[in-house]
Amino acid sequence: MTPAFLDDDKPREECGVFAVHGHPDAAAHAVLGLHALQHRGQEAAGIVAFDGRQFRSRKATGLVADGFNDPHVLAELKGHAAIGHVRYATTGASMLRNVQPLFADLVAGGIAIAHNGNLTNALNLRRSLAARGALFQSTTDTEVVVHLVAHSKARAIRDRLVEALDQVEGAWSLVALVDDAVIGVRDPLGVRPLVLGRLGDAHVLASETCALDILGAEFVRDLDPGEMVIVDGDGVHSRRPFRPKRRRFCVFEYVYFARPDSRLDGKGVYEIRKRIGEELAREAPAGADLVVPVPDSGVPAAIGFAQASGIPFELGIIRNHYVGRTFIEPTDSIRHLGVRLKHNANRASLEGRRVVLVDDSIVRGTTSTKIVSMVRQAGAREVHLRIASPPTVHPCFYGVDTPERAKLLAALHSVEEMGRLIGADSLAFVSIDGLYRAAGEGGRDGEHPQYCDACFTGDYPTRLLDADANEGDAQLTLLAEAD
Amino acid sequence: MTPAFLDDDKPREECGVFAVHGHPDAAAHAVLGLHALQHRGQEAAGIVAFDGRQFRSRKATGLVADGFNDPHVLAELKGHAAIGHVRYATTGASMLRNVQPLFADLVAGGIAIAHNGNLTNALNLRRSLAARGALFQSTTDTEVVVHLVAHSKARAIRDRLVEALDQVEGAWSLVALVDDAVIGVRDPLGVRPLVLGRLGDAHVLASETCALDILGAEFVRDLDPGEMVIVDGDGVHSRRPFRPKRRRFCVFEYVYFARPDSRLDGKGVYEIRKRIGEELAREAPAGADLVVPVPDSGVPAAIGFAQASGIPFELGIIRNHYVGRTFIEPTDSIRHLGVRLKHNANRASLEGRRVVLVDDSIVRGTTSTKIVSMVRQAGAREVHLRIASPPTVHPCFYGVDTPERAKLLAALHSVEEMGRLIGADSLAFVSIDGLYRAAGEGGRDGEHPQYCDACFTGDYPTRLLDADANEGDAQLTLLAEAD
Amino acid sequence: MTPAFLDDDKPREECGVFAVHGHPDAAAHAVLGLHALQHRGQEAAGIVAFDGRQFRSRKATGLVADGFNDPHVLAELKGHAAIGHVRYATTGASMLRNVQPLFADLVAGGIAIAHNGNLTNALNLRRSLAARGALFQSTTDTEVVVHLVAHSKARAIRDRLVEALDQVEGAWSLVALVDDAVIGVRDPLGVRPLVLGRLGDAHVLASETCALDILGAEFVRDLDPGEMVIVDGDGVHSRRPFRPKRRRFCVFEYVYFARPDSRLDGKGVYEIRKRIGEELAREAPAGADLVVPVPDSGVPAAIGFAQASGIPFELGIIRNHYVGRTFIEPTDSIRHLGVRLKHNANRASLEGRRVVLVDDSIVRGTTSTKIVSMVRQAGAREVHLRIASPPTVHPCFYGVDTPERAKLLAALHSVEEMGRLIGADSLAFVSIDGLYRAAGEGGRDGEHPQYCDACFTGDYPTRLLDADANEGDAQLTLLAEAD
Amino acid sequence: MTPAFLDDDKPREECGVFAVHGHPDAAAHAVLGLHALQHRGQEAAGIVAFDGRQFRSRKATGLVADGFNDPHVLAELKGHAAIGHVRYATTGASMLRNVQPLFADLVAGGIAIAHNGNLTNALNLRRSLAARGALFQSTTDTEVVVHLVAHSKARAIRDRLVEALDQVEGAWSLVALVDDAVIGVRDPLGVRPLVLGRLGDAHVLASETCALDILGAEFVRDLDPGEMVIVDGDGVHSRRPFRPKRRRFCVFEYVYFARPDSRLDGKGVYEIRKRIGEELAREAPAGADLVVPVPDSGVPAAIGFAQASGIPFELGIIRNHYVGRTFIEPTDSIRHLGVRLKHNANRASLEGRRVVLVDDSIVRGTTSTKIVSMVRQAGAREVHLRIASPPTVHPCFYGVDTPERAKLLAALHSVEEMGRLIGADSLAFVSIDGLYRAAGEGGRDGEHPQYCDACFTGDYPTRLLDADANEGDAQLTLLAEAD
Repeated sequence: MTPAFLDDDKPREECGVFAVHGHPDAAAHAVLGLHALQHRGQEAAGIVAFDGRQFRSRKATGLVADGFNDPHVLAELKGHAAIGHVRYATTGASMLRNVQPLFADLVAGGIAIAHNGNLTNALNLRRSLAARGALFQSTTDTEVVVHLVAHSKARAIRDRLVEALDQVEGAWSLVALVDDAVIGVRDPLGVRPLVLGRLGDAHVLASETCALDILGAEFVRDLDPGEMVIVDGDGVHSRRPFRPKRRRFCVFEYVYFARPDSRLDGKGVYEIRKRIGEELAREAPAGADLVVPVPDSGVPAAIGFAQASGIPFELGIIRNHYVGRTFIEPTDSIRHLGVRLKHNANRASLEGRRVVLVDDSIVRGTTSTKIVSMVRQAGAREVHLRIASPPTVHPCFYGVDTPERAKLLAALHSVEEMGRLIGADSLAFVSIDGLYRAAGEGGRDGEHPQYCDACFTGDYPTRLLDADANEGDAQLTLLAEAD
Repeated sequence: MTPAFLDDDKPREECGVFAVHGHPDAAAHAVLGLHALQHRGQEAAGIVAFDGRQFRSRKATGLVADGFNDPHVLAELKGHAAIGHVRYATTGASMLRNVQPLFADLVAGGIAIAHNGNLTNALNLRRSLAARGALFQSTTDTEVVVHLVAHSKARAIRDRLVEALDQVEGAWSLVALVDDAVIGVRDPLGVRPLVLGRLGDAHVLASETCALDILGAEFVRDLDPGEMVIVDGDGVHSRRPFRPKRRRFCVFEYVYFARPDSRLDGKGVYEIRKRIGEELAREAPAGADLVVPVPDSGVPAAIGFAQASGIPFELGIIRNHYVGRTFIEPTDSIRHLGVRLKHNANRASLEGRRVVLVDDSIVRGTTSTKIVSMVRQAGAREVHLRIASPPTVHPCFYGVDTPERAKLLAALHSVEEMGRLIGADSLAFVSIDGLYRAAGEGGRDGEHPQYCDACFTGDYPTRLLDADANEGDAQLTLLAEAD
Repeated sequence: MTPAFLDDDKPREECGVFAVHGHPDAAAHAVLGLHALQHRGQEAAGIVAFDGRQFRSRKATGLVADGFNDPHVLAELKGHAAIGHVRYATTGASMLRNVQPLFADLVAGGIAIAHNGNLTNALNLRRSLAARGALFQSTTDTEVVVHLVAHSKARAIRDRLVEALDQVEGAWSLVALVDDAVIGVRDPLGVRPLVLGRLGDAHVLASETCALDILGAEFVRDLDPGEMVIVDGDGVHSRRPFRPKRRRFCVFEYVYFARPDSRLDGKGVYEIRKRIGEELAREAPAGADLVVPVPDSGVPAAIGFAQASGIPFELGIIRNHYVGRTFIEPTDSIRHLGVRLKHNANRASLEGRRVVLVDDSIVRGTTSTKIVSMVRQAGAREVHLRIASPPTVHPCFYGVDTPERAKLLAALHSVEEMGRLIGADSLAFVSIDGLYRAAGEGGRDGEHPQYCDACFTGDYPTRLLDADANEGDAQLTLLAEAD
Repeated sequence: MTPAFLDDDKPREECGVFAVHGHPDAAAHAVLGLHALQHRGQEAAGIVAFDGRQFRSRKATGLVADGFNDPHVLAELKGHAAIGHVRYATTGASMLRNVQPLFADLVAGGIAIAHNGNLTNALNLRRSLAARGALFQSTTDTEVVVHLVAHSKARAIRDRLVEALDQVEGAWSLVALVDDAVIGVRDPLGVRPLVLGRLGDAHVLASETCALDILGAEFVRDLDPGEMVIVDGDGVHSRRPFRPKRRRFCVFEYVYFARPDSRLDGKGVYEIRKRIGEELAREAPAGADLVVPVPDSGVPAAIGFAQASGIPFELGIIRNHYVGRTFIEPTDSIRHLGVRLKHNANRASLEGRRVVLVDDSIVRGTTSTKIVSMVRQAGAREVHLRIASPPTVHPCFYGVDTPERAKLLAALHSVEEMGRLIGADSLAFVSIDGLYRAAGEGGRDGEHPQYCDACFTGDYPTRLLDADANEGDAQLTLLAEAD
């Protein structure tokens, strides 16, 4: 059953990472940092801390605020350095096995690893490691990195990590905790974000700046694509051990994944979203009385649309935030209620009005259909749906959970057909160039696109070695049980 | 420890009630209705259903979506009639004892009762009942009503309920479930809301219309103050068994408690809040670049302020909704982070700007102080705080949990002093007449005020018999254990 | 599902009680005392303690050692006086409601009550109390006593208790905790046991002396039938407020219920059981090679039989004590394994031998049949079954859970038929006079029997007012929830 | 905290194993078999089943009857083959990591392993495997075997297992589950038992015959030392792949570990124990009135002593079997009660008598001291303690948890001193030759002892490579979390 706070019809970011070095309350800071990154993964969280002698680990399913709210838990995660991870994960009995960070005690020293993204050659690497006697304990691609580190012939664990990462492909913003340092690395394309901050004498690495803000930490800079940053007792060291490539930051981070109050690769997310709304108002104006966002993700673009168009902004749909892990399996008689668990239209605002409805994206289209219908039932005279991203027509292989192509509404239908299916009086998406303009570019550079926009264009910036492979029947090794 | 989703510095509504009669899935509808009323009480919920032969009860601490998400639980709550309750309650081991509805199996038949509000003579009644041999099982004033019904000499259970309610004073919007009917009653002043709706052949009673909307039920009407509505197999019957009084609906329902998409006593809550913002813009204008709401409750008034003043509306503060039941007991080094668990200022929007910050009310002032400081740290040049209610200077005795007078900031300080303490460049509250105007009146009728506004004016519409009494050492009778 | 440690085919004692006054660790002593009485009830336990100001209660399903093993739980049960209860109880969701002690906070002071036995006019009393407005929270007959105390017009709570108990009939060894004293009362027939002990300055009341031994307390005396003992700050006071009757102690306590190391009404249980075995050896000798007990309850009688007959005693059946609360619902293919979960025959001892098998009683006969068959499969040449009680032909209404008459094997069949059905080469029961002789009497006094032996003779020493009544559909009042 | 049903002062067997092949309800049979072996390990249990396609695992702390009593759990453990394990294990948060069977999915196929015993060169092997990149997930020596199998160059998994086991030293009765077979192996000395049984077309392997009896399975034979038995679709195959050694079965299995109804290496355990009692009566007679066992383990030897001496056998100490996982941390005032939680002396039997007390062994002597004192307090005139094993003076390295030498009472004191310390009027142990005679030998063969009796003699039959080594600070790899 899908946790009710996960929007069934949104792409899902698979992870957020956090690391801190040099603070006596490292684990407590990791809890706060992960709480700020909760939107990047709500199903499980983990923290590994190091106190100079011992690594200690704690993992829990559910929200950070639920799994790490016990002061005794925190008190046991002693030490001045810690890394953490939040994830959206597949469900099932053995889920805890896949919760990061993973930790290994090597002869060369201990290492804990957490990453955001997805390796596109993990299955290939896994097979060759298994043939050499490696026993896998999870289905995560992160474990591949751990075994690569364990099998490396390099002496220093930092060099082993470089050697391991040099063999992987895909997207991986990664943090690692070793005996004497915290390490952050961003893949050579810089698909996923990773920022560096400072809190007094301590240093922080996080997927987004909002995890710095919650701590009152100062933003230092984004890591560069392909950069490895090592924070140890001597301060911050930067290495660039991988062959450089052109930057391809994920543009969907700006559209939907990142928190609006984050600033990524130098740009404020809220402002970009507002500007997408402004672009939309220019590209696809609508004669209407109100601009209404689909809350919460549609709000900034709706404000932008309203300001650019002069049509008043109204909170015509109210969101109920009191949702639990799962919700009742409705009986037949109430199954049609669907979306109302989370949203309700405000009849008093909408009745008799022509409405511009602003949402961030359309995946399967199921939610949009319900929302448009709900707004009409509340008395809206016209409903013009405006989407703050181009049509999503390709799956993502870089750490985002999108449906296969055959279930993406935009992969099967023209925009006109989509509008009809959804029941809107008009439907428009921002253009790919409009999106790039909102993100501060002159437009999309067709030869060397400035972003990874594969979900909109199919232009994947890496090989996809595993994509056709089939994982088959392979079972996990259960050397240790995670019941 | 305070659940983190309860704003520490807001007044807390103590309850929401729901009832349905004539639907084969009565309990499932109650779950949905209570979910929609969750903002009225987040600590516990209960449902009693009746299937023509047996009453069945289920109570759980926490959110409705957590305690009632098991299909087996619902399957056991069989029957065509059900009532339910959500509550904000005191914590502690025996809390479940106080979760409503309460049920009693009398010789005259079974009766389950749930109410929203607070009786102001409950202690007095309790003492006299105990002297007659009654054994109390909870500390709720609702149990007083149950014992009064049990001791009534009337024959029909409906008449016993009337006889019981005739002895109580205070605020009580109540729903009851008896063998052959569902009953709703509103106290003679109509302090708390209660609405009637229809869903096909079934009828629904609920604290707010948003609980009708989630079911797709049609709004029929608000109950009148002092009205008793009985829904049985023959339809809806109305009785007016109590001495009539002038209506004194709680104006704070409009300001903060009710959901913005509800319509109470004929008026849309969102619209009233927007109009309060408009009144504020007129009464207390500010030269500023942005209007920023304290989310989520300040949003409608901020939109109203922005539209009336022409200053752009911006979402300059982002709210983190991923909060759990409780959160970590922060260590000293991170205690100062406080409010950032829930809110973060968006530096990109605020930096260098003059900001009008709009919030709904000030109780202790602690949150306001932190928010203003956070906005300044994010670079705002000026912060003008505007409050969408008059100063809160008196405690409520009608079902709202407010601090004692000595902790109400406005009871101790002038508005000017409050502004200084909070750190705002300017501070203004809407006037009591401005509030009444926003609520559709010409202004406050000093002789016969149209609303209960005791928290602002000290003008309590009933005697307060229990207020000075002391509950003393009395212990609960533990005939049954709620472990 | 029946807890696996309850023998499916044994009568079940419904309760054990314990009380202590004058010891700073009263609750800890109650835990130990109840642990020693665990054989009298394994499904739930409860303790109420009083510290001079407040009564505190803790109830838990399962074994005492599981529900009261948390030092924090004990630490909260402060005070110098405590009473406790273990019970075998009906299962179901609301079971905790019926766990004793029950506590009521009356105007006259608090009172907690726990009892062992069964009232034979509880339903009658319950109906008349309900008609007077009493709201019942449980189905226990103990609650009837609590309401009778609440409705008494006497002033002192001790007098109220006497007034209440004067109205009840049946068997009730009861302990009560009031503000200034611990009280023990035994019904006028003395059907159930209750003993008084001393531990330094403290006094202890318990169902059996084994609960004194575990504390190192000194045995003072059995309470007399109809005696009320009050232990307060001034010491021990004895009252005899009820009309005296002839003593009718339950003889089955000696046969099966009591622990063999207890001494009740002046007689050692183990010795009586051994003497029953000796009587059996005389009344029903058997030519055999071994005497083998059905463990554990058949052991003392088997030792007696062996010593009287000169046939060697052997542990030919081994009992597995590692049983949990419930055990697997066996699939069809393993359902026939049945009794072997608890018992296994030792082939090496039994093969080729003629065996005298000694058990304490036969109720339905199902276990006996399986055991005899198991002993034969292990190679025994002959199996002679000897039962250390007369045939059980009547149900008990005084606190023992026996099947209705139609399921008692001995009510339907002659001893000879029983032997054939069970598959024994011979079957014999001790005679009623043999039993009385073993218990130290010359034989049974037919006119004024020295014991309650109604299960063997049908001679019930009280009226059975409720026995024919039907409880009907009445539901419990749910003023407090026991989820 | 020590689970209360573990005798604090007894050596503890670390494991029992079970396997079944060829039965549609394999897992259900494993549950029953493990239940019968529960005395060999009470802290955790695990089962792995194979249905021809997939291996499924379930592990739980606590008793088998608690962790595997859910029919849904069993229903998921599908398949015709299963192995299981019970263990006494160290406590702690990550305990579940060490619960067997362990499972690995190798390129050569899946393999699950469970073993009883202890490897004496596990640390050495572990270090060399880690140096080759192996990541360890548990602290069990079993995992060493799994990695050895994974690193083997042999093709067939059976050959890999042989290659792996050829490298280990110590005691290991092991069962394994692979794709097409169930395998049982006994180490070349045959230190731990392993028996083969048949149930219709299915075959069973178990540590003791009592696990066959519970299923109604027929005993086929003990495995020979060094024998590997493979049960697959074609039946039972025997291999002897290891260099043969002289048999050295653990004599303590007869003294204490095994269940009295088991038959091991052709000899009935109950009979051997009785004969030890007879030897004791001859070697160390005592003028006394009663022979009283320390229950339950002392019962057979006490019966033997009584029969050989003609002194009557009496159950003078009663054992309370209603013990939970842990018991209360007693306060100071009740700490001295100690042993009475489990045992109570029956004053009626003991008062004024001269008592021979029979127990199986003395480790620290703490329990013996308390029991002797308790018997005296119950009035015994003389207490003569007889021990059914020789003095325990050396620790065990073959899978039994004994204290280090410095805590073994017999390692520090003469028998005479021990008697004084314990407070007995006389103390005697059976001689080593008496023990061997009871076990069916003419006496101990000093050159080639017929049993492993290292705990009595210090004569260890293998090298003890790890014994001096120190595990150091090495941490576990946490690729998967067992929270």
